[in-house]
Parts: sequence; structure tokens; C-alpha cells
Amino acid sequence: MKGIGASPGIAIGKAYVLTHQEIKVDQKNIEDKEIAKEQQKLEKAIEISKKQLQTIKEKAVSELGVSEAEIFKAHLLVLEDPEFIGQIQYSIENEKINAAYATQKIMEQFIKVFQSMDDAYFKERAADIKDVGTRLLKNILGIASQDLSMLEEDVVIFAHDLTPSDTAQMNKNRVLGFGTEIGGRTSHTAIMARSLEIPAVVGLKEVTQQAQQGDMVILDGLTGEVFLNPSQEVLQKYQSKKEMYENYRKELEKLKDLPAQTSDGHRVEIVGNIGTPKDVEGVLKNGGEGIGLYRTEFLYMDRESMPTEEEQFEAYKEVLENMEGKPVIIRTLDIGGDKKLPYLDTPEEMNPFLGWRAIRLCLENKEMFKTQLRAILRASVFGKALIMFPMISGVQEVRQAKELLEEAKKELEAENKKYDKDIKVGIMVEIPSAAVSADIIAKEVDFFSIGTNDLCQYTIAVDRMNEKISHLYQPLHPAILRLVKNVIDASHKERIFTGMCGEMAGDPISTLILLGLGLDEFSMSASSIPQIKKIIRSVSMEEAKQIAQEALSLSTSEEIKEMVEKKLDHLNITIM
Amino acid sequence: MKGIGASPGIAIGKAYVLTHQEIKVDQKNIEDKEIAKEQQKLEKAIEISKKQLQTIKEKAVSELGVSEAEIFKAHLLVLEDPEFIGQIQYSIENEKINAAYATQKIMEQFIKVFQSMDDAYFKERAADIKDVGTRLLKNILGIASQDLSMLEEDVVIFAHDLTPSDTAQMNKNRVLGFGTEIGGRTSHTAIMARSLEIPAVVGLKEVTQQAQQGDMVILDGLTGEVFLNPSQEVLQKYQSKKEMYENYRKELEKLKDLPAQTSDGHRVEIVGNIGTPKDVEGVLKNGGEGIGLYRTEFLYMDRESMPTEEEQFEAYKEVLENMEGKPVIIRTLDIGGDKKLPYLDTPEEMNPFLGWRAIRLCLENKEMFKTQLRAILRASVFGKALIMFPMISGVQEVRQAKELLEEAKKELEAENKKYDKDIKVGIMVEIPSAAVSADIIAKEVDFFSIGTNDLCQYTIAVDRMNEKISHLYQPLHPAILRLVKNVIDASHKERIFTGMCGEMAGDPISTLILLGLGLDEFSMSASSIPQIKKIIRSVSMEEAKQIAQEALSLSTSEEIKEMVEKKLDHLNITIM
Repeated sequence: MKGIGASPGIAIGKAYVLTHQEIKVDQKNIEDKEIAKEQQKLEKAIEISKKQLQTIKEKAVSELGVSEAEIFKAHLLVLEDPEFIGQIQYSIENEKINAAYATQKIMEQFIKVFQSMDDAYFKERAADIKDVGTRLLKNILGIASQDLSMLEEDVVIFAHDLTPSDTAQMNKNRVLGFGTEIGGRTSHTAIMARSLEIPAVVGLKEVTQQAQQGDMVILDGLTGEVFLNPSQEVLQKYQSKKEMYENYRKELEKLKDLPAQTSDGHRVEIVGNIGTPKDVEGVLKNGGEGIGLYRTEFLYMDRESMPTEEEQFEAYKEVLENMEGKPVIIRTLDIGGDKKLPYLDTPEEMNPFLGWRAIRLCLENKEMFKTQLRAILRASVFGKALIMFPMISGVQEVRQAKELLEEAKKELEAENKKYDKDIKVGIMVEIPSAAVSADIIAKEVDFFSIGTNDLCQYTIAVDRMNEKISHLYQPLHPAILRLVKNVIDASHKERIFTGMCGEMAGDPISTLILLGLGLDEFSMSASSIPQIKKIIRSVSMEEAKQIAQEALSLSTSEEIKEMVEKKLDHLNITIM
Repeated sequence: MKGIGASPGIAIGKAYVLTHQEIKVDQKNIEDKEIAKEQQKLEKAIEISKKQLQTIKEKAVSELGVSEAEIFKAHLLVLEDPEFIGQIQYSIENEKINAAYATQKIMEQFIKVFQSMDDAYFKERAADIKDVGTRLLKNILGIASQDLSMLEEDVVIFAHDLTPSDTAQMNKNRVLGFGTEIGGRTSHTAIMARSLEIPAVVGLKEVTQQAQQGDMVILDGLTGEVFLNPSQEVLQKYQSKKEMYENYRKELEKLKDLPAQTSDGHRVEIVGNIGTPKDVEGVLKNGGEGIGLYRTEFLYMDRESMPTEEEQFEAYKEVLENMEGKPVIIRTLDIGGDKKLPYLDTPEEMNPFLGWRAIRLCLENKEMFKTQLRAILRASVFGKALIMFPMISGVQEVRQAKELLEEAKKELEAENKKYDKDIKVGIMVEIPSAAVSADIIAKEVDFFSIGTNDLCQYTIAVDRMNEKISHLYQPLHPAILRLVKNVIDASHKERIFTGMCGEMAGDPISTLILLGLGLDEFSMSASSIPQIKKIIRSVSMEEAKQIAQEALSLSTSEEIKEMVEKKLDHLNITIM
């Protein structure tokens, strides 16, 4: 089978297939004397479910932290909810139906009611009820739950798709690799796999039907190949490829703390993207020279109320302190669109990607926004913080956001609270209009960071998650390269720097072009840092400039990719 | 009240408020002897409903043509559907409930079933059932239907929003103006109002609650102002403004057939956008020198199967013949996204605007696409046809589409069928990547037409229908002007022409800038043609170039708008 390699490395081990089968039980009418037995079945299943959840919760707390374990606390509460459990008990007794059917029925009723409410919070409650109800139902029926937190041997996980909640409860120490049926290189699964440094392949159509539990699997995250029950010959071939890859990683290990400098002395910064304070460790371990993108929305997610200024301050301070004076670019809240918050009333939108999100939402929720700005400012004395606004479409929004930042500064001054008075302010360039008018915006900011994921989606008008058209999503499209060049040139004219924090910054095929275009800072998943450093250290700036020039003269992304591959070959640069 | 002026002119007359109130009837249990009476109520209401629909259908046939009247044929069939009517009768008799409640209940059941089906066709059936069922219910209850086809005096219509199906059945001769609560300048209501030359104001929050049936209304489509029961003074003021406007229109009437030529002799083409052959008349009447955009999707909509090659051929031929050798740019099918076809399986998409539509869909449905291309080619001998591909994101798609066109030509040659061998092929430039790489694409086509509506949406990442952010939708954003310039310059370098068929082309505030940037062809709603001609005839190309230059030096759309307004004032150009 062939999918899309989404996180490099080779996994060899047993398959663990996560099936998303719907359980459907039939109604059985029971006699009066059977009622007690069915009630006991229910009660026992509740007990088992509680124990399972308790275990998962404890694991989640120790592995992922308290806030990410909140969801399981909510699940436990459902099992004690007198409304929910009471109605199941009532149905068994009064409608004289079997426990399994009663559970299914009441669960479906609850889900329907919650889903019909026009509020993201209740929609999430529906998801909770579904998760817990299904667990309960399985325990009544004695169907073993596929508990990713309880993996007891090392496995390659196959699933239709993995949601953030799947991965939250997963015992990642047991996972050798991931293979999913849908998703692209920028899907949740892919991003997470890369940040965990676990090989992954996405877009493996029907893998959950073709793979059997326990099948021997080779999963090659470099090429996207997957073999089920391979021959001895193939197994040996891949075992040696695995070894080669591991040697290559070791080589990277050696150079990872050296500067990202070309053979003729042009130096750029290689930094990491993070979502939470604990991600800092991975960046430092891989030789990251700073944080190019701290996504603060994780602070706001999976909770039922806004994080306080204090909570935010603590998180930002922790990152800044751990980075010991290295630059940390903190992006202000990028929520809305596909990412919703239960406590923030966001409308249903026909095209969420073209909707009310990020800075658009923050400029209207001024107090929420200022709370974040105050927290960042207060934390700024503990290291070197930079503030970055997402989803800027024109200079007007920059001015408005900076005005609110000034207000926040004045408030802190009035309260005698300290902040870094030289704090730098920049924007994400991820909307085509910002890229096209970068020269205008450059006069008002201290830096740019190009967000290539969104920039590509908007510039090519393609939702990268939409499988029908994801082939059109091409960061090496001539138009994207021109926009990137335009942004870099505009920034240099104003003597400010341009970074890049989209996936393209960590994609080895793009490195030489971006370097040649003059990109100053590359921000990426921690795991990509050593490889990108290696590539940059393997060329001269002159060579990179020539490659960029040649890329700009070509007509299609295919031609550009082919040209770069030839150059890499010619320069003897291996990419694995 | 103040909304957004969406179609120019002043309407003074009585209000007709289209309420979208939900009718809810209660269940009444009836006695056996009452059953016959309730059945008669139902039967009578069916008869009345049929008569109403028959009348509407006939009107629609004569005013709008056979295909647009199809929907009412479908509605009539519902009233004869033994499943639907039979179940209502059954419920009255067996459940012993009143006719109104039975109708409501069965209607809701049918709607629920159809809606739950994952298929656009059935979702439309649900809409049909709702329309007809509500009509039936109203007739049982003796509630007069607000039948827009039956307007008996001249009125200003207020509605929450108008759907294509509302407007299809509307007796447009009776409509003085439109006011809707939602929508922008590019909503369906706005576009339709302009094409009918009826004043309209959109974005009038709560107007359907504030206006009473029969209120005296002034609706100013120029400024967006609406007055309910105005004082005598205000009434007089607007009556004279109305006169002034009508005089202005008369002035336009005089010059509309003159060429669109600047005082120093630079000539451009002013052409019209059409959706159906009958729109040709309006374009010619207003002095249009050709068709810059023939939207062919209307041929595919509101029907249950694909139009045949012959049907399409006839439509294209009719337009070409009626245009008597003037150029007609036929855009190939632009479906998908928000516009779905019942007989074409299109997936539900998270972001339809960034999805599988237009050329993306046609390149996969090759036979469907070639049928259209063959029909256009065959019609091309009856006038001057040009072919235009929508939603092109890069040169690759142009090459693929042209290949299919070549295949279609070869097929026709093999069949000894004639076509214009010099037929020109162009693309819509509406995706930023196409605008940015226009120089690459220019080498492969004969013309460009800039679709500013989508180009703005993608470039600024804003869904113009999303009220939360529609303020960001600014065709005069510096980035848009630069892209427009880039496209025009790229085309001229290859000696091909650039037109524009988005709303911007017909917006007087943009005319001088577009002229100065070198736009060759302006395509717009028929009603805008005379005014744009007047503006172009009022300046020299030198002046226009200076204005464009100045616009390119400014930072925000507000500054640009202000500058243009000053210039118009200075040049003594009135815009009404």
C-alpha cells in the first residue's frame, strides 16, 4: 500500500487497528424477573467504565498535564450523572428492555438533544456522551475497548483518522508508527507524529479494513509505503533501511547544535514551533535557536472558561525562562474557523477559513485580547518575547492591534507593572493581500513570519483537508514563491526580518529556495531542525541564490520540485 | 433606517412585508362525526393550492421561461403524491386529529426523512415539501399566502432575504424596490435588483419587524436610506431627488450607444454579464458592445438531469445570433461550492469556496465538460464566441482544459461538424495564484477576465456573505489593485487583452482607476453600462493614468476611495 509519508522514519512491528465500527444492539423485551439482572449488568459496566477512565485520567495527568486530562474528568462525571444513568435504569425497569438497548437508546436521545442546541459547548457535551456511552455499552456487551492508553506492546497504529482526543489518551511510548486513511502532510496526525518523532503515513485508503490486528507491518514514513505481512526479503531490506535512517539521525545529532550557516558564512536562524510550555524541551534538544511560533490557542482550548491573565502569564513566563534569553515569538490567539471555544460565541459559518477568526475576532473581543497582551507583556521581562498577530489582511488591522497593545502597556504602567519596553511586534503573513502589500505593512512592524499553510490555501483557493482537491495544494507553486520573495524583499528594504512558520519551513525540498530568497528565520517542528540545519550547512549562499533564481523562472511546482531534486543530488545532499 | 445601497434609484410607495413566520398549529382530537369535515377541509385546501400553483406556474412560464417554471411543476406533483396526501388523510381518519395538525405532522415527517438523506437531490425535495406543505397548511387555516406572483399593487418589498425561488415567482412589474435584512452588494437580491433596474437596499436589520404592511416607504438605493412613513417634507425632498435621478438616467439614455472612449481617444469595451439568452435584450438596450460573461450554469440548474449537447447548443446559438457578431464570452460550467446540482454527486465540504468546483470539477467529469465544449464549438459559427475557463489556479489546469477542447474539436471534425477554427480561449483570473503568475499563463491563452468577487474573497480571505467580516471585503484594497495591474501588464506584454467581469467592473468608484491601469474590457450588469460609459467619456486617459498611479501609492482602501471621490468631484463627474 502507498500513502503519503507524513513523518519520517521506519516502523517495523505489529499492527493495532483502531476500528470505528458503530455498535448497534437490538431491543430485547425482558421479563420482570430479568430486570434485576439487567440492572446489575448496567451497574457492573458503570464500575468497569469508571475504573478504565480513572486509569486513563491518571496516565493523562502524568504524561500530558492536568489541563489535557480535564476531558476524562468530564467523562467520569457523565457516569455519575443521575439524569443520564437514571434514565437508563428507568427504561430497564419500566419499559422492560435489556440494559444494552436501554443504554443505547438513552445515549442517542441525549446526543440528539445536545446536538440540536446551537452552541459549541453542548455539541461537545454530545461528543462526551457518545464517548462515554459507547464505552459503557461495550462494557455491558463485554466488547474489549480499544484503549490507546492501555497498549501493552509496541505497535503500529492504523486508524481512519486520529482526533486530538484519540491522541491525548494514547500511550505514546508504545507507538512505533501511525497510518491513517485520510489526511495530508499537514493534518493533525501528521503534525503530531512529527512532533513526537514517530514515523507516520497518511492517506492510506481502507487500511483499517485491509490490516488485521497483529499483522506484521512495515511502515515507511519517508516514502509513504506500507507493507502488511511482508516477505522475509522485504523485511530485511527495510530493517537495513531503518538502520541507515537511524545512522543518518545520529549524524544529525552531531551537528544539531552547530549554527545554521552556509559554507560561505551566511547565517540564518533555525527555530521551533510549539503549542505548550512542555514542547520547549524538544526544541532545545534538537538544537533550536529560539521559538518562531508559540501557538497560544492551546491555553484556551479544552476548558470551559477563558484562561485568566495569571494563568497565561505563568505559561508564557515558563517558556521564556526555559528558553534562557533566546527569542520566543508568541502568536496571539488564533481561534475561530475550524477551532472553536466553548465559552466564546462564534457563529456557524459557511466557509470558516474565510471567516471570523484570529485577529478579526480579537479586535472585536477587545478585553479578551488585552488580557492576553497584558499577560505577554508581563512575562516579557523573563526572557526575549516577541508578539505576533495572526490573520492580518491589511495595514489597518495592524494599526488597530498595535493601538490595543499600547493601551495594555499604559494599563500596566499605571499599575506599576514591568514589561520589556523594547518588545518587538510582528505579523503572520498568511493572507495573500498581506503578502502582496507587504511593503506597506513593513513600515509598521518589526518582523514578518510567513504562514505558508494558510497562505497556500488562500492563494490557490484550496482547502488542504479537502481530499478532492488537495493535489492543488502546492507550496512550490510559482505564485507562492513570488509572494514569499515579495515579503522577504519588502522586509529587507525596511531592515526588518522575515521568518517562516508554516510547514514549508521544515520541508527539505524547499530549504535551498527559501535560503536563496533570503529568508532569515526558519521555524518548524522540533524534529525537522537538525535536517534543515544540515542542508543549510551543505551549500553556499551563492548556490542557494542561483537555485532560487532558477525556481522563479519555472512555470509549475512539478518543474520546480524536479529541479531542486536534481540540485540536491548534485550537491550530494541526502534527505531522509 | 440605513442599509447598504445595492441597486440605484429611489422607490416611493407602499411597503409589502414578506414575513417568514413559522406557522405552528396544535393537535385537536376530533370525534368520528368530525372526520368527514376535516377531510373536506383538506381537500378544499388542496384544490386552492393547486389553483394557486397553476397560476404561478403559468406566470413563470410566460415571464421566465419553461425551465424556471419547472419548480412549480414539482410543487404541483407533491399535491398529487399519494404518499404525502394519503398519509395526511390516513392520520385524520385513524388518529382522529384535525386536518391542519395532520398536515403539519406529515409534512414535518417527510422533511425530516428527506433532510436526513445525504444527497442534495433529497434535500431539495425537503425544500419542496416545505414550500407546498406550508401553502397547504395556510389554505387549511385560511391564512392568505404572501404570494409574490399575485402582487396587485405597486409595492416596496421588505424581506429577511430573498432566495432565487422567491424571486422566480415574483411579479416584477409590481415591484418598486427591495429592502432585505441581510446580504451585501453582491448578494443574490442585489445582483437581481440591478439586473432588473429596481432600487434595492440590503443589510436593513429588523426591517421586517419595523415596517408594517402598507406603510408609506421611501427607499433610496443610492445611499441605502429607508424611511418608514416619512413626513411630508422628507417625501417632497425624495420625490425631487427621484426626479433628478430619472433625469440623470435620461441623460445616460442619450449617450448609451456612443463608444466608451476617453476625451483623448483611448477606447475600451463596455459589455454585459448575462445568465440566460433572454438577458441579451437588456445588454443591447443599455448599449452593451458584447457579452463579457455568459454564466452557463443556469442551463444546468433547477433540473433533474444534465442538459444535452443539443439543449446547450440551442442556448448558445440563440445568444450568439442575437448579439449579431458582437463578442460573447461563454464561461464553462462554474458549479460546486455553494451552487450544487441535484444530478451531480458533490461532497459536503467544510469550506466550499476553497473546494471542488468549476474547472476542478470539469477536469474530473471529462464527458460532461466535453459535451459543453462541443455545444459551444458548434454554436461558434453563429456569431463571435470566446471560451472562458473559471477557477484556474495555475498553468497546468489551462493546459489540461485546452487538451480537452482539442479533443472536442477533433470529435467534431470527425463528425464533419463545423466550428469557428479561430475561437479564442481565455480564463477567469479569480484565484490569487493565477493573478500572481499571470505572465506564465498569458503565454497559453488569448485573453484574461478578472473575476473580482472571488479574487477579493481569496486575496483577503473573506467570505463576503459572512456579515461578521464583510467589512473586510474591499475591492479597492491596495493588494487587489496591484494584482489587477499585474494581470493587465502581463496580458499586454503578450499582446492579449484583459477584461473584468466581477462587480468591481460596474462600480463607478473603481472605473477611473481600472481605466488608468489599462483594463481593456469592462463587463457588468446591463443597467450599469450607461453610467460607466459616461464616466469614461468624461476623462482623458492621461487623467485616468494619474489617478491609477496615485491609487497605487496609497495604503488603505479608505484612502483610495477618498482620493477617487475627490477626483470625481474635481472632474465634475456625478455618480448617482
